[in-house]
Amino acid sequence: MMIKKGDFVLLYLDEKRKYLVRVDPAKELHTHKGIIRLNKIEGKKYGETVITHLNVSFKILKPLLVDFLENFTRTTQIIYPKDSALMIIMSGIGPGSRVVEAGTGTGALTAVLAYYVRPTGKVYSYDIKKQNIERAKRNLKKIGLEKWVVFKIGDVTQKIDEKEVDAVFLDLPTPWLAVKTAYYSLTNGGVFVSFSPTINQVEKTIEALREHRFVNCKAVELLLRTYKVKMGETRPETFMIGHTGYIVFARKP
Amino acid sequence: MMIKKGDFVLLYLDEKRKYLVRVDPAKELHTHKGIIRLNKIEGKKYGETVITHLNVSFKILKPLLVDFLENFTRTTQIIYPKDSALMIIMSGIGPGSRVVEAGTGTGALTAVLAYYVRPTGKVYSYDIKKQNIERAKRNLKKIGLEKWVVFKIGDVTQKIDEKEVDAVFLDLPTPWLAVKTAYYSLTNGGVFVSFSPTINQVEKTIEALREHRFVNCKAVELLLRTYKVKMGETRPETFMIGHTGYIVFARKP
Amino acid sequence: MMIKKGDFVLLYLDEKRKYLVRVDPAKELHTHKGIIRLNKIEGKKYGETVITHLNVSFKILKPLLVDFLENFTRTTQIIYPKDSALMIIMSGIGPGSRVVEAGTGTGALTAVLAYYVRPTGKVYSYDIKKQNIERAKRNLKKIGLEKWVVFKIGDVTQKIDEKEVDAVFLDLPTPWLAVKTAYYSLTNGGVFVSFSPTINQVEKTIEALREHRFVNCKAVELLLRTYKVKMGETRPETFMIGHTGYIVFARKP
Amino acid sequence: MMIKKGDFVLLYLDEKRKYLVRVDPAKELHTHKGIIRLNKIEGKKYGETVITHLNVSFKILKPLLVDFLENFTRTTQIIYPKDSALMIIMSGIGPGSRVVEAGTGTGALTAVLAYYVRPTGKVYSYDIKKQNIERAKRNLKKIGLEKWVVFKIGDVTQKIDEKEVDAVFLDLPTPWLAVKTAYYSLTNGGVFVSFSPTINQVEKTIEALREHRFVNCKAVELLLRTYKVKMGETRPETFMIGHTGYIVFARKP
Repeated sequence: MMIKKGDFVLLYLDEKRKYLVRVDPAKELHTHKGIIRLNKIEGKKYGETVITHLNVSFKILKPLLVDFLENFTRTTQIIYPKDSALMIIMSGIGPGSRVVEAGTGTGALTAVLAYYVRPTGKVYSYDIKKQNIERAKRNLKKIGLEKWVVFKIGDVTQKIDEKEVDAVFLDLPTPWLAVKTAYYSLTNGGVFVSFSPTINQVEKTIEALREHRFVNCKAVELLLRTYKVKMGETRPETFMIGHTGYIVFARKP
Repeated sequence: MMIKKGDFVLLYLDEKRKYLVRVDPAKELHTHKGIIRLNKIEGKKYGETVITHLNVSFKILKPLLVDFLENFTRTTQIIYPKDSALMIIMSGIGPGSRVVEAGTGTGALTAVLAYYVRPTGKVYSYDIKKQNIERAKRNLKKIGLEKWVVFKIGDVTQKIDEKEVDAVFLDLPTPWLAVKTAYYSLTNGGVFVSFSPTINQVEKTIEALREHRFVNCKAVELLLRTYKVKMGETRPETFMIGHTGYIVFARKP
Repeated sequence: MMIKKGDFVLLYLDEKRKYLVRVDPAKELHTHKGIIRLNKIEGKKYGETVITHLNVSFKILKPLLVDFLENFTRTTQIIYPKDSALMIIMSGIGPGSRVVEAGTGTGALTAVLAYYVRPTGKVYSYDIKKQNIERAKRNLKKIGLEKWVVFKIGDVTQKIDEKEVDAVFLDLPTPWLAVKTAYYSLTNGGVFVSFSPTINQVEKTIEALREHRFVNCKAVELLLRTYKVKMGETRPETFMIGHTGYIVFARKP
Repeated sequence: MMIKKGDFVLLYLDEKRKYLVRVDPAKELHTHKGIIRLNKIEGKKYGETVITHLNVSFKILKPLLVDFLENFTRTTQIIYPKDSALMIIMSGIGPGSRVVEAGTGTGALTAVLAYYVRPTGKVYSYDIKKQNIERAKRNLKKIGLEKWVVFKIGDVTQKIDEKEVDAVFLDLPTPWLAVKTAYYSLTNGGVFVSFSPTINQVEKTIEALREHRFVNCKAVELLLRTYKVKMGETRPETFMIGHTGYIVFARKP
């Protein structure tokens, strides 16, 4: 499959030097290892290489979902793949699921949800800020996932329009205030999922879930450890992300 | 949607007492809280309750994928949801992907892969033991995921029939011996994923991946911490699973 | 140095089968590997072996402080060596230090404190329960550390008699209530140390410390991971203690 | 107790702005918050404050051992307090112990050992580089701990002069090569302790310990997690040190 104008490619030298770009033959990419004219990529295949004017060779890779996520505008904190992956699997959603999400933020979680409910599911993504919705729309469009998302400006602590949804995902400062609306939006057996950076948010959310008779309430966190692997000198990396957030799960009975 | 004969239900009292059963009106379930006649479940809806002969009330929930996974025969160690979820998201697979897996084992990872490549993808799952294949088939059939899986008795260190696949998932004692066949099976930019309990397996696998010029090689592990949440008395659980395995990722350039 | 009547020895076969016993020539130790007559140990040296009536050979080791701690009556939770060690080093105490401790509990932390303030320091250990004090006295006497401890029945949230102490160590349900008395007991620059299982206790304690103008306030926790080491098959243990408690440090300015 | 010329003080504003200085009335300390003339500190007491020329008030604290350790020249990696504390307590050493250490490095572990074997014990610290010994001597002298240390230029994989020592502490690239000499240096029941950044060093060391019939072999690692505590907004710090090193313990039978 040949790469054509408008396609996204990941130009890869190593873990520190990888660039996600859209192929525009009129443009060029400036790297520390030289300039790459993007017209040189058109017509190539994924897996081939392209050379900078300094003769450094970059691999042309097809971007994965996670490559796109890394490039989302980071004005707010995004949910890391390790966390969104667990949220997806524990919620039981998959192709065909109908899910509600709030807040949209940059759209990083929205993109993951849309990716996995394809081709017949739908994501209803709420945010109270219009500018977040606009930015998320642009981000999702870039990846080609926008058609599985209905963006909505609104406050889910007040109202969720959709009923009988399979799961509700919350990334809000006060998720406990949306427990009631989530309850009425969820189908029986539907899954409530919430992501919060502080332990106090978890306490309040679990408390609210119990009051609304949700079952199967769980609060967990994931620590990702990365290794520096070299034959005979293998060790974990010295620095790690020590905390992203806690995840709360519960089911509507 | 009414529950009918042959459906699976999760009978839920609390985290310790939950039972995954298939509705067979002729049978009954014996629990520490009394006997449940399964004919009483037929015709009910998910979210309703059923009462034991001792008058204890169980919630009837629709089982999620993870509920099924917990009930797979555990003669061999299965890959935990926290790990399979990360493997899925980092591999970039989703609806429509074609993936190779080895070894099949109980089919726990097979089930997760099949779940996420639906409705148009396919999983080619290899195991050298016929009995593993048979058991995995039964397990997948129970969940209704068997039609997305082609089971194969075979040794992937010798040969992988499929070409241009999006990802190869290995849960083998010697994943490094399958790096070469994985290379030839993967499409350009395709993702190699391997799960191993020991750090020495990781070393050998990464070494083999580098020899075969895979890029973007990563070795990580996930620690899942569970919390006991009670307003004013919140703390992590005393006991935790301290190790499941290391995950290796790499991309074919 | 010959082992004599009344000495403690650690009879060691492997990590699961090790026994801390006091040498009493009239007694015998019954193990799954046979009976050891304790009179056979008298007159031997540490490092030698003793044989059961089934001809299994146990090493005779001199018990370390941590071996004694493992054998303290565990009616209440004890502070693990990983935690008490950090508490000691961060508090800056050592030979000659004067420290206050509450509550005594089984005396596990008391023993560690006494061990490190020897030979010229002193530990003032408070507990509100007479029976805890009695048990801790017996435990400390067994290890020969009782002469560095003054045991006191009393409530440190009400009153601490000692002034100008180098450090105050709290293992109480409500450490925040003892911040004020700790403040008046500590010397300038003295260190406040508190151990608590829940995060809410940490919040309240840090809050109280800030109100009393303590500086250098820190809240940390330690995770200890144990490895199963075998050439070519090395991995962390599957099960681990996921949580013991949080440690709070602060200094009186 | 009045502070006099030559004393060390910790000038503390907050966790990021704290300075360990020796009181020299002729000097001044330049901080981002203004200049402090050190002659203003002479004659004060610990716990009092000193004011910069910009009228910012710093607390004058007596430095703890860990404050000194943080200021050791860091040309090589030092062993963190969390690790050295566990090494001390698990080794069973304390006031009066005789211990061997190699390599000296900057003297950070040497200082901790010396601190806890006071007033009657001794540390024999080996390094193959004269410049390390010189620097460590200077560092130990600063803290007043030099009289408990005998520094030696030498290679412990070849020879350890001392016999019947209570513990041997190794922070070497190849600790397994010193297992034999450690064995002959240790008293019966004495404790071998080794610190290594890579898992492969751990494997080789444990292997060598087993060959020399050491018992009670353990390999562990400690993860220190720091919390940002604020009433209602408590969470672990985002960044953490994900790895320092593995610790190996064993006892000579």
